[in-house]
Amino acid sequence: MMIDRLFESVEQRGVVCLGLDTRLDYIPQQFQPNATISDRLFQFNKRIIDATIDVVACYKVQIAYYEAYGIEGLLAYKNTLNYLREQGTIAIADVKRGDIADTASQYAKAHFEGDFESDFITLNAYMGYDTLEPYFPYFATGRKGAFVLVRTSNPGAKDIEYLDCGEKKVYEIVGENTQRIGEQFIGRSGYSAIGAVMGCTNIDEAAKMRSQLDKSFFLIPGFGAQGGSAENVATLLHRGNGGVVNSSRAILLHYRKFEGQENKFDEFARLEAITMNDKIQQEIQRSK
Amino acid sequence: MMIDRLFESVEQRGVVCLGLDTRLDYIPQQFQPNATISDRLFQFNKRIIDATIDVVACYKVQIAYYEAYGIEGLLAYKNTLNYLREQGTIAIADVKRGDIADTASQYAKAHFEGDFESDFITLNAYMGYDTLEPYFPYFATGRKGAFVLVRTSNPGAKDIEYLDCGEKKVYEIVGENTQRIGEQFIGRSGYSAIGAVMGCTNIDEAAKMRSQLDKSFFLIPGFGAQGGSAENVATLLHRGNGGVVNSSRAILLHYRKFEGQENKFDEFARLEAITMNDKIQQEIQRSK
Repeated sequence: MMIDRLFESVEQRGVVCLGLDTRLDYIPQQFQPNATISDRLFQFNKRIIDATIDVVACYKVQIAYYEAYGIEGLLAYKNTLNYLREQGTIAIADVKRGDIADTASQYAKAHFEGDFESDFITLNAYMGYDTLEPYFPYFATGRKGAFVLVRTSNPGAKDIEYLDCGEKKVYEIVGENTQRIGEQFIGRSGYSAIGAVMGCTNIDEAAKMRSQLDKSFFLIPGFGAQGGSAENVATLLHRGNGGVVNSSRAILLHYRKFEGQENKFDEFARLEAITMNDKIQQEIQRSK
Repeated sequence: MMIDRLFESVEQRGVVCLGLDTRLDYIPQQFQPNATISDRLFQFNKRIIDATIDVVACYKVQIAYYEAYGIEGLLAYKNTLNYLREQGTIAIADVKRGDIADTASQYAKAHFEGDFESDFITLNAYMGYDTLEPYFPYFATGRKGAFVLVRTSNPGAKDIEYLDCGEKKVYEIVGENTQRIGEQFIGRSGYSAIGAVMGCTNIDEAAKMRSQLDKSFFLIPGFGAQGGSAENVATLLHRGNGGVVNSSRAILLHYRKFEGQENKFDEFARLEAITMNDKIQQEIQRSK
C-alpha cells in the first residue's frame, strides 16, 4: 500500500516532507528569466526535486500557489506532479477538498487520475464523513491515500477545532472518527491509508494524539516558523516514523541567507532539508 | 456592493441559482460531438446560460466537475466564468477553499482575479476564522463576496456541524461568528458580503437561522432531490429575498424527461428554472 511506501521512505530518508509552495518571487531572478510562468515554476521545482530526492520522505504540492497563476500555474502543477511520480517519489497534493458525495467523486477523479494524479491528497471533513466515501475505491486499490484535517497549526485552530463538545474537543472527535473509518485500509506498516493532518504546536496534545491515534499516519505542519519544535515533532512520531513533517519556505528560500548564491538555490534547499531532518532525528534519539 | 447586486437580481429574476455542475455525460450526444472536451463543456454551458439568464438570479459553477477533466476541464471552467461575467450576470465559484492565511491569499488571487475570476466564492472555515481574512481586501472593494459553509444539506452534516458544544451546535457557532465577522461588509440591502451556505432540509432550523442570522445572505443547497421543500426555502428567506436556492441536475437534465428533445436541452432548462422559481414564489406568497 502507498502508506507503507511512505513508511519505508521515512525509514530510508527521514521525516521531511518538502512543500513545493512555489511562488514566482521565490525563484532567483536570473533563473530562466524568459521562460513562461508555467515553465519557470516547473523548472524551479524540478531543480529542487533533483537536489533533494534522496534526503526527503516525500513532497507536498500546495495547489493554491499554482491556481493563483490560472491555467499557466496549473500546467506547472500538473508537470510537477507528473515529474514527482516519474521519479518514483511520493506526491501529496495539498488540496484540502471537502464536498458532498457526488462532488467528492469528481474531486477523487481529478486528483487520483488524469492530469493532476497524486499519491495522497488532503481532505477537509467539516461537511461530514460521507464526504470521504467517494475516495474509498481508490484507497482500496492500495495505490492512494489521504490526510484528513484534524488539528491544524494556525492560530485559528482554536476557533472551531477546539470547541468543547462535552468531554472532547471537535478535533479529537474528528481524529477518532477518521482513524475508525480508516481501519478498513490498514497497511503492513500498521498505518491506515487515511491519515491525519496534525499540527505540532502543542506538546501535551502531541503525546495524547500519538497514543490515541496509533493507526493514523500524521502529516505534520507548523514546524519552525509557526512555532512547532523538534521535541513536539518527536512526540507526534512513533519510533521516528508514523509521520512526515512539512517544511516549505524555510527550504525553498534557504539560499537567500547567503549572498550571491542564487544559482545554487537547489543545493541550499538540500542542505536545509538535511539540517531539518538531523535536528528532528537528534530529538528522536534523545527521547528514546 | 456585489451582495446588493445579488439582492437586486433576486428582486428582478427570482431565487434560482443555476448550478453549472456539468459532466460530459449530461450533454446530449449529438451536441458538438467532435469538439474538444473543453469546448463541449463550455458550449453546453453557454447555451444553458443564454436560455436562462433572465430567469435566474445567478449561476454557481462547481469547480470539481471541471477539475475532473484536468487542464481541459479548467479551460471550460475559465471560459464559463468569463462568459458569465461578460453577460453581466453573477457567478458564484463553488470552490469550498479553506487554508492558512498565506495559502488563502493565493486562493483569493486565484478566484478573485485572473483566469478564474468570479464574483463570489464558497469557503470552508474548519481551520478557523483567520483563514477568512485574506479575502477581506477583496470584500472591501465592494466587488466580491463569499459564502461560508455553515449548515450543509448532506446526511453527513450531523457528524461535525451538529456536534453539541454546550448550548449550541458547531454550525450555529460558525454561523454566528461568520455573521459577526461580516458586519464590516454590510451593503445597502442590509446583507453582508460574507454570507452562509445554509441547507434547507429542516424547517425548524430554517426559522431559527433566518432570525438569528438576519444580515447573512444564504446560498441554499438541498432543494428537491436532497429533500428540501419550497416551504423550508421560504422560511430561510426574508420577504422572498436574502437567499438564492441552488439547483443543478434537475435543471440541466430536465430535457431527459421528454423523449427526442435532446436538441432543446436549453429550452427545457429554462422551463424547469421557471417552474422551480414559481413553486418557491407561491410558497413565499402563502407564508406572508
